[in-house]
Formats: sequence, C-alpha cells, structure tokens
Amino acid sequence: MTTRNPRHPDHSETVMTQLVLQQHSNAVGTLFGGQLLAWVDIAAGVCAMRHAGRVAVTASFDEVAFKLPVRHGDIVVLTARITWVGRTSMEIRVRAEREGLDGARELALEAFTTFVAQDDAGQPTPVPPLRLDSDADRACYAEALERRARRLAHAGR
Amino acid sequence: MTTRNPRHPDHSETVMTQLVLQQHSNAVGTLFGGQLLAWVDIAAGVCAMRHAGRVAVTASFDEVAFKLPVRHGDIVVLTARITWVGRTSMEIRVRAEREGLDGARELALEAFTTFVAQDDAGQPTPVPPLRLDSDADRACYAEALERRARRLAHAGR
Amino acid sequence: MTTRNPRHPDHSETVMTQLVLQQHSNAVGTLFGGQLLAWVDIAAGVCAMRHAGRVAVTASFDEVAFKLPVRHGDIVVLTARITWVGRTSMEIRVRAEREGLDGARELALEAFTTFVAQDDAGQPTPVPPLRLDSDADRACYAEALERRARRLAHAGR
Amino acid sequence: MTTRNPRHPDHSETVMTQLVLQQHSNAVGTLFGGQLLAWVDIAAGVCAMRHAGRVAVTASFDEVAFKLPVRHGDIVVLTARITWVGRTSMEIRVRAEREGLDGARELALEAFTTFVAQDDAGQPTPVPPLRLDSDADRACYAEALERRARRLAHAGR
Amino acid sequence: MTTRNPRHPDHSETVMTQLVLQQHSNAVGTLFGGQLLAWVDIAAGVCAMRHAGRVAVTASFDEVAFKLPVRHGDIVVLTARITWVGRTSMEIRVRAEREGLDGARELALEAFTTFVAQDDAGQPTPVPPLRLDSDADRACYAEALERRARRLAHAGR
Amino acid sequence: MTTRNPRHPDHSETVMTQLVLQQHSNAVGTLFGGQLLAWVDIAAGVCAMRHAGRVAVTASFDEVAFKLPVRHGDIVVLTARITWVGRTSMEIRVRAEREGLDGARELALEAFTTFVAQDDAGQPTPVPPLRLDSDADRACYAEALERRARRLAHAGR
Repeated sequence: MTTRNPRHPDHSETVMTQLVLQQHSNAVGTLFGGQLLAWVDIAAGVCAMRHAGRVAVTASFDEVAFKLPVRHGDIVVLTARITWVGRTSMEIRVRAEREGLDGARELALEAFTTFVAQDDAGQPTPVPPLRLDSDADRACYAEALERRARRLAHAGR
Repeated sequence: MTTRNPRHPDHSETVMTQLVLQQHSNAVGTLFGGQLLAWVDIAAGVCAMRHAGRVAVTASFDEVAFKLPVRHGDIVVLTARITWVGRTSMEIRVRAEREGLDGARELALEAFTTFVAQDDAGQPTPVPPLRLDSDADRACYAEALERRARRLAHAGR
Repeated sequence: MTTRNPRHPDHSETVMTQLVLQQHSNAVGTLFGGQLLAWVDIAAGVCAMRHAGRVAVTASFDEVAFKLPVRHGDIVVLTARITWVGRTSMEIRVRAEREGLDGARELALEAFTTFVAQDDAGQPTPVPPLRLDSDADRACYAEALERRARRLAHAGR
Repeated sequence: MTTRNPRHPDHSETVMTQLVLQQHSNAVGTLFGGQLLAWVDIAAGVCAMRHAGRVAVTASFDEVAFKLPVRHGDIVVLTARITWVGRTSMEIRVRAEREGLDGARELALEAFTTFVAQDDAGQPTPVPPLRLDSDADRACYAEALERRARRLAHAGR
Repeated sequence: MTTRNPRHPDHSETVMTQLVLQQHSNAVGTLFGGQLLAWVDIAAGVCAMRHAGRVAVTASFDEVAFKLPVRHGDIVVLTARITWVGRTSMEIRVRAEREGLDGARELALEAFTTFVAQDDAGQPTPVPPLRLDSDADRACYAEALERRARRLAHAGR
Repeated sequence: MTTRNPRHPDHSETVMTQLVLQQHSNAVGTLFGGQLLAWVDIAAGVCAMRHAGRVAVTASFDEVAFKLPVRHGDIVVLTARITWVGRTSMEIRVRAEREGLDGARELALEAFTTFVAQDDAGQPTPVPPLRLDSDADRACYAEALERRARRLAHAGR
C-alpha cells in the first residue's frame, strides 16, 4: 500500500483547496486576512518540507499582496512552489486563487515566504539544490534572485 | 487575471494538503478522527460544487475506513473525485494519504460521501451527467453502482 | 467527593448537548457537516471508552445519514449507545437531534461508528461483552448483526 | 419523526459530555480554564433556553470554583440545572465532573450563572416560574435564595 | 536585544486587544459569552504569571458581570490588574471594554478572578507581596479585602 | 459610563497580550507561524481602524521576519503602531516580543503591514494625516518612506 511520491520534489506544486466558512470571516463578511495567512504558512511549509525531506520552519514572509477580497462560500486554491534554494533556506511562492461556482479563478493573494530546514536538534541543515529543467523554471528562479538582491541591498545598508 | 478552470469538472480531482498540528491531535498524540472527517467533508464538498456548478450539501457518508493512524507533524493529502452521479446527487470518493518526510505515501482513510446540489432556494437541483472517458473512469463507476445497489437493497427492506 | 458511575456501562447512553454558533456554520447558514461529524466522533469515542474502560480509536463510520439541516441558534442533542461488541471492537450508534425553542426534537443525523479499544502500547485489546437485558436491547443488537453481515458480505467479495 | 421533549423543562438537566483534546490544553498539560468556561456557558445557556422557551443571554457568573485539574484524555461531564427563577432572569448551576476510564467521577468545577430571556427585539422577557416538586428541589432553591440575598446585600451598599 | 520589563510587576496592567470576528459570535450576532470568558482567563493568567514570576492556574471566577452586548466588528480591550495577594494566591480584576470606531469605550464586562502560583512540581508556591503606592492602589486593595471577607463569611457558614 | 479614548489616535500603540497554548503549537512544539501572523493581522487591523475611524482591510504584509522561536507557555506581547499614512492607506509596524517568567522580553517577530480604510460601500476612503510630534516619530516615518521608495522602485520596473 506504500507508494513513492511520483513527483520530483524540486518541481512539485503543493496544492491546498479550502472552502470559506463563517468561522473564517471577518466583520465585513470577507475572508479574515489572518486566516488566509495561516493557510499560506501551511502550504508553504509542506512545500519546503517536501523539498528538504526535513522539518522546516518559517523565517520570513515578503511581498504579501492581498489583491482581491474572498467571500464566504468561495473556494480558495493555494499553490506553493519552490522558487529559490540557498544552503539551508528555501524561498516558496504561494498563490491563492478564489474560484467561483463557474470554475473561473482569479488571483486573490501572492506571497513569497522563506523557510529554513532543521535537523533533529533544531539547527539549520543543508537542503538539496533546485533543478531548473524548463524555461519557466529558469524565469521563476531569475525573479527570485532579483528579490533576493533587493533584500540584501536593503539589509546591507 | 481571470482564467478558466482548465480541468473538465467531470474528471477533476480536488486536492487538499494539510499539516497535522497539535490542535488536530487527540489524547494519544494522533490525528483526532473528527478533524480528519471535517477535512474530508470540505474536500468532498468542493469536488461536488465543482461538478454541479452549484452549492452542494452533505447527504451521507458511507464505508469510511480509518486504515492507519496519522501523527502530528505528518503531511496529509486528501484527494476527492466524483464516482457516480444521479439526478441531483453525486457520490464522491475521498482518500487521505499520510506522507512522510521521505515522500512515501500510505492510504490512511477512504470514504464515500454523497452530496446534493441545491438551487438558490435550497431545493435539490439537477447536476450534469458524469463523462466516462477512460477504463479507470468506467471501473470506478462500476464499483459505485455496486455500492449503490447494496445501499438500495438495504433501504428497500 | 468521588462517586462510582451509577450507570452500567453496557447500557449507558452518552449525551452531548451543543448550541450551534456562527463558528459552526457553512456558507448557506446551516451547521457545517464536518463540525457535526467531529461531535459524533467525540460522543461515540466517549461511549466506547466507557464500555471498554480503555482508550478507544475510530475504526470506521458507516451509514451516516444527514436527514435534516441544522441552523445556527439550534440546540443539538447527540446520543451515543453501544449496539454491538466484538472481541476488541465496538459498534456505536449516534443520533443527533435538533431541538427547537418549543422543546420539539427531530432526528437530524444518524451514524454507525466502530471503535477499537487499545492497551497502553496502542495495540487492540479485548472489551467486555454486551449485556442484553431488554427487548429493545435485543432488537438493537439484531439490527447491528444485520449491518455487520452486510459489511462482511461486501468485504468478502 | 417529531417528538415532544418528554422532560418537564423546570426539572430537566442539560448534560454535555466532552473529551479533552490537545487543542483544549494549556502549557502545563491540563484543561485550559477558558475552554472549560466556554463549555459551562453553552451548557448553562441551553438549560436557560429550555426553561424560557426563548433565546437567553449570559448576565453573570458567580462563585465559579475550579476544584480539580482536568488532563487531556479525561472525559468531562457538564450538568446544568435551573436553581432559581426571577421575572426575566434565571440562575443555572453547572457542575463539571472529570471521569476516569474506571467510571469514577469527581467534581472538577462548580459555577452559578445567570441568564436573561430575550424577546425577538432583544429585550428582557418574562420566563415561567420554577416548579419545586421534591425536597431536593426545595433545598436547591433555598440555597439559591441565600446566594441572591448575599449579592443584593453587597449591591445595596 | 533582550530588555527588562520596565514596569514593576505589582502595578503592571496586562492589556489584550481583540477584534470580534464571525467565529466569536453566537446565534443572535453578539460576542459569545464563553469566548469573552476565555479571553478574560488568558488576560488574568498572564497578569498573575507576571506578578508571581511563575506559572499560575485558575482557582475561581467571581462577580463576573456582563454589562453590555458586544457585536462583531467591535474592538474589545481587556485590562487585567492585581488587586489582592495572599500567600500563594492572587486576585486579578479584569475589565473588558467595547470600543467603537469613534474611539469611545464602554465597560462591557467586569470579573474578579483568583489564580494560584505553582512550582515546578505543580504545588502552590508563595508569591511576592503587593506594593500599594498610590491612593488608587489602596482603594482597590480595600475593595478586594471586602470581597474576600464576604466570601469567607459565606464559606464559614 | 462612556469615556473618550484618551490617547490621540496618531500616537496610540495597540497592545495585544497572548499566552501560547497547545492549540497554537506546531509539530516541533513551537508557536505555529500562521497563528502568529493571524495575531499580527488583528493587532495591525485594530491599529489601522483606530487611526482611520473606519473599517480597514489588509492590503499587504512586507518584511515579516521571524527572529526567535516562541514556545508554548510563553507570553507574547504584540505592539502595533502607525508608521506611514497615504491618502487611503496606512503602514502599520507590528512587533511581537516573547516574554519569559522573569519579565525579560526579546523581539520574536517584526512585520510591516498595509491596510486600506473602507467606507460603508466597501470603497477606499481618505484617512487623517499622521502627526509627527517627537524625534522618534520622525525617525520612524523616515524609515517608512525608505521602505515605500524601495517597493515603488520595484513595482515600477
């Protein structure tokens, strides 16, 4: 009954589908931002753990943009993918789309998160490199390098 | 920014990835059964709504088998697909696999759920037929007919 | 201050009363199916633990029928009782009634669940037999045997 | 399928059984006090609504004594009963017992709560008088009158 | 990056700000009493732990008065302060104010809670005395002594 | 009983104190990142609503850095303050400190969030300007302008 995960971890997308219930809503009837961020954290964390083959913990969230409100009754589809890999840390892009009953999807949130792999003692531990097989992979990686350069430039000041 | 759902609703699989946190655990440190059933209900409900293009509500759960315990820290992957369609109701099979850090997956739960599509007045409303394109589709459907026959035989007594 | 549970475990009914709050509701304003199943799992689990005098874990849910919608503000009364006992497993029937402010109750859900008793090492362990004292007990047990025969017939195929 | 609540509302006890999961625990591994109070509020509220035949809202909690710690894995049995009735308000005593796997129960918490019945406009509305049929009923009521006298003496200062 | 808490523990007020979401509401659209009590328990517990420099557990709640309903979308500001200190126990007053968008605040709940400090073995352990520096401190303490006298008079009967 | 909020909204700090319970923990026993982000969203949202005198919704999260792990049993103190104000949007800095039983506090998370004020129709609506009274206010504002310049430079590419 045990089967190998058929997807190469470098290229896997972690998908999490949710349905917005009353318990997820804020006072104006839309999805509470904090709930969406909690889902983003889980989707990104699973994606990071799949790449690292290790427990991974949240290091940072950047450029988290709430683009469209989500209402209760909406379906939300979160998709996480690895976009950059350092020695012990990984950048994961998460997109959350709201999906209507007609199947149309619109981007509701985009976020760039960084996770760090941990060994059993809770210390940072190396992760496998990122394979870049397609042009899309390479474009995605180039953008991640730019984001990283911006952040380092800022931190260096 | 709006895109059509590229997957034909008849054949879509609804995927929900979860990470088991302390808040999902029971007293013996494994995933609380009721939490897993709540995730099954959401995955099945989204799958039904995608087929129907309508709100759908839970009508029954059958043959829900808890096969393996899930521990906190485990990844859980739920996959829901339509296996049978009546006039206003749909059968959805949900499988939940536990996934270890090595990527190996094992079937932890299987469930067969039935949902009914509702119109805006909350009344049952017709759903599209189920397309059977592959041998796998047809095998899946044949098994669903058997389950249905068993249930009707029982209900008829 | 310590008192013996006065009810013989074989015949005890486990009662759980709930009040449906906004946090339990789905997008159409009724009790979210997954929440009701979580309550069923707790009521059945307590009932099984009382019979076994042991921790008990969920093995299966069968013939779970959602008969009537429950709205927020409704009272829900769950009643669980042991209907069949094997060597290490127990069948528990759970009924959930919705109760209005006039005290009228209607059956909203019925479910048949199976739990397995566990020893301290997490292994299945024997449970006491079921005493059948009244005609109602015996009728209840006879129906459980029929359900069991149906399931075995199916599994045997 | 609709049946009258067979118990006279004056004398009904509202019973809520719970199982303490990890999500209910505080940092020292015992039941978080706030979670137990939330259960008390629901049990008392249902009891009040059953007496009043109306929505009832929390007015006060008094003499809430946490007598014994409850651990995760414990069963908790809450029992609520009406002990005093005014024109629009009701006093409800709630007892929470922890129950071990051997069926032994010990009183873990006792609380006296007051609820007020509301009409559809959210205004206080009269409730039925309390019937006192047994000596136990009358003793319970006499104690409630004492508590009330103490509170009024204090408020009058 | 480590700094000493600048406030003397005797006089610190523990402040907890909350925003009422749908998940906190009851059936009539107001803040569920049990949720507010859970917040009170956390604010009081933190206040007690700050005074004691120890883990502290809930011993009792008294004179908990719900004065005004709180609606979803309202801001709630809880303020907890130590009002009395015994050998191992502390009385903490908690006030919850509802705050409108115009900044106006009204007292929605007042509660007097008692917590007991615990050593590492879970046994009651001494706490520092309460310093009374201002007239307000002394007035607050005098009222606490009166509450305590009332409770002892009652318990002594 | 109604009193004006004595703090000028421009300079108020919104404080939210929390206690980390089991329900907030991830599989490695530390505070789940998504839970902390949910608290950040509420603290920032309340801070924005106090400045705007309006409902405010999350627009973005930036430079969210998780600096230190938080364990269950820890106290967490979140402090939110307005750092920049545009026509309809506001930047709010949130700091979360973990506090030990000895009162020592360490910065565990810092985040910069942007909220937009909404009128009753859900449209962006102007907010009051930010008053800069002290050197600290001005330094804080200068840093916010730099962050904003960086983001615009990036968006302009």
